[in-house]
Parts: sequence; C-alpha cells; structure tokens
Amino acid sequence: MKLATYRDGSRDGQLLVVSRDLTQAHYASHIANRMQQVLDDWNYLSPQLQDLSDALNAGRARHAFTFDPRQCMAPLPRAYQWVNGNGYPSHGEVLARAAGVPIDPGNDQEPQLTQGSGANVWGAMDPITGARDTMGLDFCAGLAIVTGDLPMGCAADSALDGVRLIMLCNAAHLYVGPLILQRPGTAFSPVAVTPDELGEAWSRGRLHGQLQVTWNGRKVGLCDAGANMHFHFGRLLSALAQTRPVPAGSIVGAGPVSNKAVERKGRAEWPQGYSCIVEKRAMEILQDGQPSTDFLHHGDTVRIEMKGAGGASIFGAIEQEVVRSNS
Amino acid sequence: MKLATYRDGSRDGQLLVVSRDLTQAHYASHIANRMQQVLDDWNYLSPQLQDLSDALNAGRARHAFTFDPRQCMAPLPRAYQWVNGNGYPSHGEVLARAAGVPIDPGNDQEPQLTQGSGANVWGAMDPITGARDTMGLDFCAGLAIVTGDLPMGCAADSALDGVRLIMLCNAAHLYVGPLILQRPGTAFSPVAVTPDELGEAWSRGRLHGQLQVTWNGRKVGLCDAGANMHFHFGRLLSALAQTRPVPAGSIVGAGPVSNKAVERKGRAEWPQGYSCIVEKRAMEILQDGQPSTDFLHHGDTVRIEMKGAGGASIFGAIEQEVVRSNS
Repeated sequence: MKLATYRDGSRDGQLLVVSRDLTQAHYASHIANRMQQVLDDWNYLSPQLQDLSDALNAGRARHAFTFDPRQCMAPLPRAYQWVNGNGYPSHGEVLARAAGVPIDPGNDQEPQLTQGSGANVWGAMDPITGARDTMGLDFCAGLAIVTGDLPMGCAADSALDGVRLIMLCNAAHLYVGPLILQRPGTAFSPVAVTPDELGEAWSRGRLHGQLQVTWNGRKVGLCDAGANMHFHFGRLLSALAQTRPVPAGSIVGAGPVSNKAVERKGRAEWPQGYSCIVEKRAMEILQDGQPSTDFLHHGDTVRIEMKGAGGASIFGAIEQEVVRSNS
Repeated sequence: MKLATYRDGSRDGQLLVVSRDLTQAHYASHIANRMQQVLDDWNYLSPQLQDLSDALNAGRARHAFTFDPRQCMAPLPRAYQWVNGNGYPSHGEVLARAAGVPIDPGNDQEPQLTQGSGANVWGAMDPITGARDTMGLDFCAGLAIVTGDLPMGCAADSALDGVRLIMLCNAAHLYVGPLILQRPGTAFSPVAVTPDELGEAWSRGRLHGQLQVTWNGRKVGLCDAGANMHFHFGRLLSALAQTRPVPAGSIVGAGPVSNKAVERKGRAEWPQGYSCIVEKRAMEILQDGQPSTDFLHHGDTVRIEMKGAGGASIFGAIEQEVVRSNS
C-alpha cells in the first residue's frame, strides 16, 4: 500500500491512504490519524490500512478524493531518528580521489552511518531553506526506509523484516570545501510505499530502478539504485542496531545513489550522471583538474522521482525550489 | 515546576508533576498525558501544570502519591532530536593534549554539535546496555535542556527564551582508542525542571552548581557546571538554529561537564575530578604518560546528581548499572 500525510495545521498532519496510481486518496482517520501511531502499532493497524488501500484501488472507497502532492507533509513529518548511511561507496570513493586523500579502507567494508535531525523534515514540495552565501548548498537524492522495532544486535537478513516503508529523499547539505558543515533539512517523497507494493523491484534490501534527478529542468542523474547498492538496507540497519535497538519510526537513508565510473578511452566517465552536486564536482576534478559546476542558487529547482516498470511514478516526485535565507 | 514521566507500558508513558522536594507526585492526565504534547502546546498547557504544581507543593493536590524514581522513564521518553554540544571546551582540550594532536582552533571559538538518536533514551535507573568486549564503555555526565520552538537564525540571548526544561544526562559512549565508535543510549534524570524553579542558580544559560558523579560508590567528579561552561545553552541553541529551525521537544546537551586544570608544583591537576572516564584517562596520560583507569565493566554503577543551595537533590539521581550484552 501507499501512505501519505496531509498538512492540516498540526505538527503531525493527517494520515492518508493513496491509490497505486497516485490519483486518489482517502483519509485513514477511522484507523489512525498519525503515521507514527501506525508504526507504533503496525501489526494491529496496518491490515486495516491495507483493507482501505484495497478498496481504494478497486474504486470502492466511499470518500475518496483527488490526491494532491502539494498538500503533503513528509509521510512521517517528524521522526525520532534519521540516519543516513553509505549504501553506495562509489560516492565516497570518487570524493576521496578528487580530494587526493586515501580512500577510507572501511568505505566498502563496514556501513558508515551519520545521525541527522528527525525534527527537520520537509514535505516533497517544500522549499529548500537554510542557504548561506558562505557555503555551497547541495541536494542529495536517495532512498530511505522507515523501520518497525528492531532488536539490538539483529542480523542483516532479519533486519529486513523491520522495513515498513520505502521513500525517496533529498537531504540538503551545506559545504565549505569538501566538508559538510550543516544539514538544514531532508525532504521525502509525497508517498511512502510498503515493500510488497514494489513487487520484484524490491529484492533483498535493494530497490531496483533508476533514480531520476532533474536540476533546473535538466536531467542530471539516472543512477541505478539497485545494482550499485553495495550495503543493502539490511546491512545498514544491522550496523545501526549493533549496540542499541532501533525503535519503530526510525528513518534510515542509503546516502546519495551513486554509480561506478566506466573507463572510456582511458578516461573515467559517469554516463548515468549524479545524485548530488558534490559528486559531480569530484568527477570534474578527476576529469579536468577543477570543478566547473557550481552549487545551488536561489530559485534553482530540484526534482527527484522513480518510475516503475510500467513507467508510472512509484512515490510521486520530490520537487523543491531553493529559497534564500538571510546569511 | 518539576515534571516526570512514569512507565505505563506505552512508548511515551504518563506525565507527572513532582513536588519540589521530590517526595510527592500527581498524574497530569486531566491536562496532558504525554510530555511531547505539553512541549507542542506549551503556552496553553504549562500554566495548567503550574497550577497543579502549586497545589502539590502546598499539600493541596487531591490524588498525590509518593514519587518513586524507579518508575520513571526519561522525562521525554523519545525525542525528535538529541544533540550534544561542547559547552565545556576544556574537555576537548585535555583529550587533544593527551592524544598529542593539535587542539582544534574552533574548540573554544564556535560550538560543535553532535547529532544523536532521540529514539535511544533511557530512564534514570535503566541499565546501561550495548557494552562490547572490543570497545571501552564510558559514561558522560552533563546537563541537557528541552526546547520549545526556535526560529532559524535566532541569536543566543533570544534562544534562551526557548529553554523549557533542564535535566541531567548520562550519554553512554563506546570507544576504540580515542575515537567514539557508538552511542548506545542516553539516560536522563528522573525529573525535568523549568528554569524558574532553579532560581538564581540558573543564570543566562548556565546552571551554577556541582555535578556529583559517583562510580561504584566512589565520588569521582564534583565539577562546577556553571563557572567553566564556555558556551552557555543559548550559544549552543543559536549554533543549532544557524541553518534550520529548532522544533519543540529537541533535547540539547552541553557535553561532559569539565573543569580546567590547575597547576600545582609544575604539574597539572584536576581537583574537581571528572565527568567521563575518557577525560580521566587523558589526565593520567598527561600526568604519568599512560592511562591507568579502565573503562566500565559489567556490574559497575554510575550515579549522577546535583544538589541545590539547601543540599536537596534538584533533579533526582541518575543511577545506572552496566549490563553486558552479547558481543
């Protein structure tokens, strides 16, 4: 099933069930008002949401209405935990090569996780705020999952049983040089999707599909989110649970989707593009000795989407505009 | 007023008002069930809690009962944000000196904040879990505040208006060498206290008083939490709000309370002791060339408390025992 949260003036919004084709929606108020409620009590509440989803997809839901992603908060508008990992170590590798520093030997050996703020979460069409003149503002397009409860020490395979929902995300980063200085916030796709809804595209902790990234109307990324995912979500969750349990409603990202370079006539190329500007700049340094792509400017737009086998949008699109804040 | 949360089998527990002397308590169910509710709607709900607090302290509350800190979850049992800062840069300084690395020039210039998990929060008497044979387990005793809503870009002074509650905390750390590898969880004092309750001890973002740290029954720390606090809570909050708003219910810590060394006969000494083992080990390296104090073992106990001018406990005590997990 597909779930979303509509803005209603409250901090947690109103839970919706959304049709598979993203055209229709239905309030879930008679089952649960808030997404966290469902995550806290998944075994009891999710079958009821599934029934509503079935009715909605069959055109039998009584009070269905047209789904409007502009009304969406993030599916989970505030989370008790937001952790981003390095599912795609080729990202770290290209950044290290460009910076001329040794590649961290752990880069593709052990997942690395960065704790973020679960309180600074944006809806899919909210502006990107927090830009500063003195820092480079970047998007970072990727996948994220929402968890159920996982026990401390759980293994990668069993951790996958705790994947409740899958979303797209855009984690804004502010850089000075190659250093991340600030993380102003993270946007999530309008809709969060249960693993069963993804069919064979979801396989053993990886979502197979191309992540489309469009910057100011120009397609800049079509990276394969499945084939190049080195640490699948079970590995990331198992690493997170190493010394502590993972409570329901934790959001775990896999970092920017990144594809390995291919060699063409002795030159490294990345035909599938990029999911974050800092990686594009690293590619340029490796190719030309210096970066030529600038970071985001006021008024820039970023669009992130993934389409299913039939060409339909799975999660709806993240569509954000950069809005300057005072520096 | 003083607030606490009793365990009731739910994830968020039941909100209590506690008497100033920590002997009596009263459920706040007729006002709000959960602490986050109060933080979300502080201006409306806190005066009602204050009335209950006044009645309780005057012996007029009808259904008061004996307060038992063993029944306490953390005052805010799960938080949308938990950030620990470096309020006491002498901590980073002594660690850098002992490691023989240059002191980060930013150490006492700009607050440094580390995002943690707001989902891994312990009650004051919960065991410390997550220990591993291969890592050194440490306590880290300090102060933390719970915020209201703060706008992006707020200044240090106005940020102090957003301090809703003050608590003690114990952030467990796992080290390999000088590197923090894992943060299994953080315990908070039984009771969270509003700034007005602290009288003159709370002054311009600093709490003046000694943080008593007892390890296996032995007093190891009596650090002054006020005088040596370089970045007060307003500074830490302002730094956190630099590129994003700080939403209600964020918890911000000031890191381990640390006091500067004093010179005695050409030798550095720390007569007020320490609030975390890693700092004690650094002192030993500077004094004797090598550390002699080992990290925590299974069965060790840690007690953290602060007493007011009259000698009474302000927040109740954090009293934890280390429980081995499988490695």
